[in-house]
Amino acid sequence: MSNQHKNRTTVDIYGQQYVIVGLESTSHVRLIASLVDDKMREIGSRNPSLDISKLAVLTAVNAVNDYIKMKDQLERLQAELIREKD
Amino acid sequence: MSNQHKNRTTVDIYGQQYVIVGLESTSHVRLIASLVDDKMREIGSRNPSLDISKLAVLTAVNAVNDYIKMKDQLERLQAELIREKD
Repeated sequence: MSNQHKNRTTVDIYGQQYVIVGLESTSHVRLIASLVDDKMREIGSRNPSLDISKLAVLTAVNAVNDYIKMKDQLERLQAELIREKD
Repeated sequence: MSNQHKNRTTVDIYGQQYVIVGLESTSHVRLIASLVDDKMREIGSRNPSLDISKLAVLTAVNAVNDYIKMKDQLERLQAELIREKD
């Protein structure tokens, strides 16, 4: 991993700048950042009294929830594919 | 949706309490909260100078990134399943 080229991408999320370092392309990092920004604005508009750290934690809760649902769906589909191939 | 029973679950994430209201079971909400808590502690241990709101935003970025990768994998698998069924 250490020999692979790492990209540094500066993104703006909810009015704050972040430097994201990783193997992903700049365009991918920008896409992810814009999805997080959108989700924070959506949750923030429904809960205007939340401070930024609580808003960010609830955004993370939301994203992890979506991830776990998608993972369950993927596992069901993998099982179905194995049955189809038999 | 409004007729469905909503659960209120109090969880602790990174030392703060949150009340999560939704259709998900309490045990599911607790699982998600513990995953977010773990991820925040993991990112926080690698970046001890981050304040809680930046840490939470980076946790959300991480979770959305995992979600998008899983979504791509799911779409590839769905296409494969369609081919298998033909």
